[in-house]
Amino acid sequence: CSLAIMVLVGHWVRVPLHGVGIKPETNGYPDGTNDTSKLFNWHPVLMTLGFVVFMAEALLSYQAPIIPGLPREVRKRIHLGCHLAATVCVFLGFVAVLQSHRLKLPDPMPDWYSPHSFLGLTAIALVGLQVLVGLYSYVWPRLGLSHRMALGPLHRFWGAAAWLAALGAVATGLQEKVTFMQMKTLTRKDLFGPAVRLPAVVLPLLVVLALLVLYHQ
Amino acid sequence: CSLAIMVLVGHWVRVPLHGVGIKPETNGYPDGTNDTSKLFNWHPVLMTLGFVVFMAEALLSYQAPIIPGLPREVRKRIHLGCHLAATVCVFLGFVAVLQSHRLKLPDPMPDWYSPHSFLGLTAIALVGLQVLVGLYSYVWPRLGLSHRMALGPLHRFWGAAAWLAALGAVATGLQEKVTFMQMKTLTRKDLFGPAVRLPAVVLPLLVVLALLVLYHQ
Ligand code: HEM
Ligand code: HEM
Ligand code: HEM
Ligand code: HEM
Ligand SMILES: O=C1O[C@H]([C@@H](O)CO)C(O)=C1O
Repeated sequence: CSLAIMVLVGHWVRVPLHGVGIKPETNGYPDGTNDTSKLFNWHPVLMTLGFVVFMAEALLSYQAPIIPGLPREVRKRIHLGCHLAATVCVFLGFVAVLQSHRLKLPDPMPDWYSPHSFLGLTAIALVGLQVLVGLYSYVWPRLGLSHRMALGPLHRFWGAAAWLAALGAVATGLQEKVTFMQMKTLTRKDLFGPAVRLPAVVLPLLVVLALLVLYHQ
Repeated sequence: CSLAIMVLVGHWVRVPLHGVGIKPETNGYPDGTNDTSKLFNWHPVLMTLGFVVFMAEALLSYQAPIIPGLPREVRKRIHLGCHLAATVCVFLGFVAVLQSHRLKLPDPMPDWYSPHSFLGLTAIALVGLQVLVGLYSYVWPRLGLSHRMALGPLHRFWGAAAWLAALGAVATGLQEKVTFMQMKTLTRKDLFGPAVRLPAVVLPLLVVLALLVLYHQ
């Protein structure tokens, strides 16, 4: 289900959004405007990869229904590894959106204006805390067994909560971008084409993913 | 927390969105266009009232921290009453958005184009099923005790899931409407005014509400 969502979002970015790129493109207008949208496009790709693919795997790693007989040591490594991969994606995805605003010419775009950005920041803060507390308690310096056992339910509850907030950020982010496109470049017929339909299918799939992951907790 | 969100959304609809109304308003243009936005405005008000206020209370009613000593019979009534109130609000809120599209002149607006509408429909379907199964099993014709006990954990899990999907619909709906306004009538300075800031504060509050409600499950 993670992979299905990733394929849909990837296809959405590649075709209706015209793919990703690292550098702003000058579009040849004499007024010196440029186009940072391919840089922005890394943002949905990396956020989806981080939260929907890696973090979902991380949350499932202790209960993975796919490989039942895995020893607990290996599961711990998968949980940690997936979380670290997710953290890297989220960090880069965050840099991508900030830079796509900063590098915009002739004027930089403003930041932190949208409900999505407020929710995104909330999710990043919750996940960040969870990673810091997780590393501190379970990896280094590592708490004693009784403290770790007391932490278990709290770590689980806040972990699930942070991840759900992040899925909400994914949903609002897709909606925001779709409405931007709808108001700028789409015709009325395009409303029923892939630019809108791919994310429209992704949102219910996020619900299915949340159900599957939380059911296996 | 529910009430804080309701006040913020209510204020948002009343001031930057110019309030609610039942009838489309002709705006005096000779081409026969009209304005159904005050009819549309019932949609966010009723959806917030239904899902954020009544349904949150319904989910808390078995564990309500406010009134600890309540007998279980009374709690059942509160749970059922709040759910029925929520169902009425959601139904009317749904009619409001459909009618605001239908009654638009000179052409009706299209339906089901946005990711928000797909997610909204998913949430309505889940909640609707939950209400039907709930009424069938617990009220009429009412299952035997052993069946009801077996149903308990399922009812809880799907109830929480349906409600979280509905909160996602609230979040994407607010984001969609904000981006519509941003692209139509807002100036760059308005991005940091109440039309955008009120919903931007509501989204993190929805996360807080979800935490509070799920923590008390
Ligand atoms: C990199 C930092 C992290 C470390 C070292 C870590 C470590 C652990 C450990 C040792 C457990 C097993 C707890 C137990 O069974 O009592 C666990 C479980 C869990 N962790 Fe993490 N964690 C980290 C980050 C996160 C993050 C960021 C999230 C969510 C966003 C998360 C969500 C969970 C969940 C939901 C479980 C419960 C799994 C289950 O029982 O099925 N963790 N984590
Ligand atoms: C596929 C998913 C996503 C899409 C399409 C998307 C889309 C957008 C858009 C259009 C913006 C720029 C407008 C604005 O400032 O609000 C933005 C900014 C932002 N996004 Fe996303 N987003 C996605 C996922 C996420 C996720 C999962 C998070 C975090 C958990 C996130 C966090 C942010 C933040 C914090 C900003 C604000 C940056 C700033 O204002 O400088 N986004 N996103
Ligand atoms: C109107 C139809 C409904 C009826 C008659 C009903 C009935 C009940 C009953 C009898 C319980 C107690 C179960 C137990 O303790 O084993 C319960 C609990 C619960 N219901 Fe409903 N329910 C209905 C609709 C819903 C809906 C629509 C939702 C969510 C969207 C929901 C969510 C919950 C939750 C989360 C609990 C667990 C409460 C707790 O243990 O703290 N219910 N419901
Ligand atoms: C405050 C919260 C909300 C706001 C601001 C809002 C906003 C909107 C907007 C702008 C539309 C019209 C565009 C479209 O068709 O997508 C819409 C339609 C819709 N909304 Fe909401 N919404 C909110 C809450 C909800 C909730 C909680 C649900 C359901 C659980 C929901 C379900 C729907 C549905 C199903 C449509 C599609 C109707 C159609 O396409 O004919 N909305 N909403
Ligand atoms: O249902 C809709 O609401 C907004 C807005 O115009 C209503 O005022 C819009 O564009 C829709 O399609």
